[in-house]
Amino acid sequence: MGKTVAEKIIEAHLEKGEARPGNEIAIKIDHTLTQDATGTMVYLEFMAMGLSRVKTDLSVSYVDHNLLQTDFKNADDHNFLRTAAAKYGVVFSRPGNGISHQVHLERFSVPGNTLLGSDSHTPTNAGSSMLAIGAGGLDVAMAMAGHPFHLIMPQIAGVRLTGALKQWVSAKDVILEMLRRLTVKGGVGKIFEYFGPGVETLSATDRATIGNMGAELGATSSMFPADRRTREFLESQGRGNVWKEIVADPDARYADVIEIDLSALEPLIACPSSPDNVKKVSEVEGIKVGQVIVGSSVNSSFRDLMITAKAVERRHCHPDVSLEINPGSSQVLLNVAEASGVINLILAGARIHQSGCLGCIGMGQAPGTNMVSLRTFPRNFPGRSGSFPDQVYLCSPETGVAAAVFGEITDPRKLGDYPGVTEPAKYSVNDENFIFPPEDPAEVNVEMGPNIQPFPEFGPLEDTIQGVVILKVGDNITTDAIMPAGSKVLPFRSNIPAISKFVFELLDPDFHDRAKAAGTGIVVGGENYGQGSSREHAAIAPRYLGIRAKFAKSFARIHKANLINFGILPLVFDKPGDYDSIPQGAVIRLANVKAQIEQGKETLVCEVIETGQKISFKLIVTDREREILLAGGLVNLASNS
Amino acid sequence: MGKTVAEKIIEAHLEKGEARPGNEIAIKIDHTLTQDATGTMVYLEFMAMGLSRVKTDLSVSYVDHNLLQTDFKNADDHNFLRTAAAKYGVVFSRPGNGISHQVHLERFSVPGNTLLGSDSHTPTNAGSSMLAIGAGGLDVAMAMAGHPFHLIMPQIAGVRLTGALKQWVSAKDVILEMLRRLTVKGGVGKIFEYFGPGVETLSATDRATIGNMGAELGATSSMFPADRRTREFLESQGRGNVWKEIVADPDARYADVIEIDLSALEPLIACPSSPDNVKKVSEVEGIKVGQVIVGSSVNSSFRDLMITAKAVERRHCHPDVSLEINPGSSQVLLNVAEASGVINLILAGARIHQSGCLGCIGMGQAPGTNMVSLRTFPRNFPGRSGSFPDQVYLCSPETGVAAAVFGEITDPRKLGDYPGVTEPAKYSVNDENFIFPPEDPAEVNVEMGPNIQPFPEFGPLEDTIQGVVILKVGDNITTDAIMPAGSKVLPFRSNIPAISKFVFELLDPDFHDRAKAAGTGIVVGGENYGQGSSREHAAIAPRYLGIRAKFAKSFARIHKANLINFGILPLVFDKPGDYDSIPQGAVIRLANVKAQIEQGKETLVCEVIETGQKISFKLIVTDREREILLAGGLVNLASNS
Repeated sequence: MGKTVAEKIIEAHLEKGEARPGNEIAIKIDHTLTQDATGTMVYLEFMAMGLSRVKTDLSVSYVDHNLLQTDFKNADDHNFLRTAAAKYGVVFSRPGNGISHQVHLERFSVPGNTLLGSDSHTPTNAGSSMLAIGAGGLDVAMAMAGHPFHLIMPQIAGVRLTGALKQWVSAKDVILEMLRRLTVKGGVGKIFEYFGPGVETLSATDRATIGNMGAELGATSSMFPADRRTREFLESQGRGNVWKEIVADPDARYADVIEIDLSALEPLIACPSSPDNVKKVSEVEGIKVGQVIVGSSVNSSFRDLMITAKAVERRHCHPDVSLEINPGSSQVLLNVAEASGVINLILAGARIHQSGCLGCIGMGQAPGTNMVSLRTFPRNFPGRSGSFPDQVYLCSPETGVAAAVFGEITDPRKLGDYPGVTEPAKYSVNDENFIFPPEDPAEVNVEMGPNIQPFPEFGPLEDTIQGVVILKVGDNITTDAIMPAGSKVLPFRSNIPAISKFVFELLDPDFHDRAKAAGTGIVVGGENYGQGSSREHAAIAPRYLGIRAKFAKSFARIHKANLINFGILPLVFDKPGDYDSIPQGAVIRLANVKAQIEQGKETLVCEVIETGQKISFKLIVTDREREILLAGGLVNLASNS
Repeated sequence: MGKTVAEKIIEAHLEKGEARPGNEIAIKIDHTLTQDATGTMVYLEFMAMGLSRVKTDLSVSYVDHNLLQTDFKNADDHNFLRTAAAKYGVVFSRPGNGISHQVHLERFSVPGNTLLGSDSHTPTNAGSSMLAIGAGGLDVAMAMAGHPFHLIMPQIAGVRLTGALKQWVSAKDVILEMLRRLTVKGGVGKIFEYFGPGVETLSATDRATIGNMGAELGATSSMFPADRRTREFLESQGRGNVWKEIVADPDARYADVIEIDLSALEPLIACPSSPDNVKKVSEVEGIKVGQVIVGSSVNSSFRDLMITAKAVERRHCHPDVSLEINPGSSQVLLNVAEASGVINLILAGARIHQSGCLGCIGMGQAPGTNMVSLRTFPRNFPGRSGSFPDQVYLCSPETGVAAAVFGEITDPRKLGDYPGVTEPAKYSVNDENFIFPPEDPAEVNVEMGPNIQPFPEFGPLEDTIQGVVILKVGDNITTDAIMPAGSKVLPFRSNIPAISKFVFELLDPDFHDRAKAAGTGIVVGGENYGQGSSREHAAIAPRYLGIRAKFAKSFARIHKANLINFGILPLVFDKPGDYDSIPQGAVIRLANVKAQIEQGKETLVCEVIETGQKISFKLIVTDREREILLAGGLVNLASNS
């Protein structure tokens, strides 16, 4: 039987298991990437393993999240990452050099290779046909140490593209259409593989846009063939040598096929406050806008900035709108500057920022009270902007720039003649912004500032867990809600005791105090619990506060893996209706849980102490994950072995 | 007798008093400028006066300080300023358009006009021969309302420049030489007027650099003649029509003359943590550097950025150094982009930020622990960087870029061939970044976000003040120490109750609580109390906390005026040695103070309750200032009249 692109890459990297959907498999990881907000913990974990050098083909440490530097902590983290990279054989991408995904796509991506990144948007590198997966930091640290990455073999769902995008419609509208149809949990357990005649109408960075926001579908990854457009992009980067053709066999079979006629798409927009709350731009026209931001990990490529720069040529942004540009990389800005785009943008009144995630992760750029903000970002979860409540819409650069010009949400087709953008045949590159590790790291001193605290020690699983339901939440709770980002919290990412004070802060400011008082705690959630960012702090910090189990109707993939990695039981309601039987504050007893997990039981029964009610849960984990849970987390297991 | 340039401008604007040094005079104000950190309070004060339109020739509202936007507050302030400007006839310069002083110099400066700004670096516009003075916000609000500005006629001190600067030496080194010779209090009560054959070797922006940091000398202002270099600059801005020649009469007399041979200067650097701790760069070479920032209100002009861009051409910044660029204005960045400087800077690894004050006011760019940071900024007071302790050095762009290239403090002459910079004969301009007020403001709605609180009400002067010495401090206490800036505090500038919690926070975190508990308080200081920034919050917030008098050996000019404006008695020790007789915590009684001030007494006697010791103070104020103090502040006086 023919194979899909994803299957070919997985099979070429398979180290354990059989690649059937639902099976646990382990795959060899060729590349890793980290960013600074998750990366400091990754390197602390890696250091704890006592190895002297990473074992991947390539590991890159990016600095893109924490660039505000409101005190010593950010700069200390940058120094720690720089010196740790030199010590352990990692390439360091300097602060301001750009966003991990865009830079990796430009300078390091290799079609057919695997990439594991401690950032949920790692699948951006689907743009050049890497199998790119976001994971918790500890999984990335394990990959750097040479261990294969364990995952449940996803279904390979096909997305058949036909036609071609019309003027003022772009790749963002394709992924917004996917979100409109499938919702934020429509991709759980899947890789979306794009195929069909429409694929070759999309450039590598268009594909990267779609791959990036595949994360918003909850997908394990997204995949595109490595074809002439991939080669064209790699050649424009002076890296044509790494290209090879990888296409699906003609008789490849997809678990499911979604059809999208690109020519039928029109400009779309995700309304507050979920990426799947998608409408046609024409349906929400006329809403007054105060801020437009083009950039972040998605839509920050040359094409994205240039279409913006060309659309504002001989125009100026509306007096009520702050138009802001977050370039994806210093290479993007360099090439946009060479193409006179920087001049256009300045003349239009845009605020051009250094390359980085910035407002996308709540590091600045917060909108004002009741201010509508249009962003080309991937996420608009409540409060992620830094303002709460907020009104953040997600859209293409075309839709963003139309709002910037007219001062209200406007169908970008009203901008008139479509200027088009041609990518450089040869991009100007600037690889001196990377610091390559020395051959002999003996003299490198890893610099750890005072905010950088070692990884906390956790004990093994108890025989019996008895704890209080500290918090009960609804469906689609994001890791942003569990462990906020933003300018106040991100600087503590290297310091678990400090960051734990902010767990669930937006939903419930007393969570920390109640959890500490209770000693042992449980959190109850609904469907798709832990969607969004890959941040493992959303598991480590609750564990630090004594959370030993989370009950939910379903878990998002990365968060579930993180919970297991840090010794929190991810238990799924056997009967979803039982969700209603557990009030916040209830005392719950999970008797003999250790013995049952050792015995491989899949159903665990807990007792609600107040009512005596028995509720059964599924513990859907692999044998390896059972071992991790019994050890109290993967760090313990790795140290014991 | 012949007149100096300063005397000519003052006499042309004199509305009250006789222009003899030491006399109180009042001068007409032609232009005002505000920035956002002081400006929100200025517009709240202006609104409280009930006027419908500013009465100046030109008032401009800039947004340059609070650009981090970590939550709704910054953006709300920007909206408040934008709508208040439209309502009251003020030109609004959009966020990201640039730093008030640089933008005003470019687009609005008029030789011979007066400019009052709610920012201590307002004398930057000496660059085009404005009499430009920094003042507290309330003084600026009064000027906007058409009132003349009251000040003590300063001495006009002459600085005679001869020779010409050598390669790799620039205007920053001139003002650092002044600071080396005169210290941070060497300019109190003075205007420094530069004259002599060396003056014409300095461009308008060179002169602006010198004028800017005249504030660091404690000077009232600095002055340059309006000559062919002024005309050249204005013509390059398309504004040659506003030029007129203003030079000192041949027989003008200066109170004092300082001689500087420009050709004898070499690269200088202000070491931590005062702008007058000046050494030759060659004396401190070899210190490892982690950060270099070019820009801020000083050294952010075209020349400054281009010398940096040219110095790094075909070089790359050292791996251990973060090179950061804060353009003075979007016009500067535009012209640097057109001259290919942006491309050079990106290729060198620089992080290019939006135009604004940024790290200079502690809004981001904080250095790491023990990290040496070289900045072209005007100030390096302890903790102003956002990190505490910090190691901030002040220097020219040339010295900064040498450190960025070599990774350690290096005499810039070691950079080799001097590239030189030629300013554009015609700058590209972008006046669409200004929002000019509508003719009819009736429909403008001033938008006030929830953090914007009205000005607090203060009572008139009490008959007797009895209070506790809440804090005793030493010499040269800055307004940064009294009322910190930085990313945590600046967002509360529109909210006195909230910002008062941070008074003296760096020196004494309990100050707020002790002051509130005491009810009525006193602060004791040494020489040059309240130097530095013009922020009136350093008076308003202590007053809000019950501080009714400050005792010092001497006061910095703007801070003293602010204390009076908000009803705090600025009392100077009659015998400086009595400073030692008042311990922190002492209870002090100023009996019948109201009656004595009404009677015009210049000496007030207080009693230290514990010891019974009597200590006499001078109250060195004008009749008008006595009225303000009796009323409890200028807002009260203006409301009563």
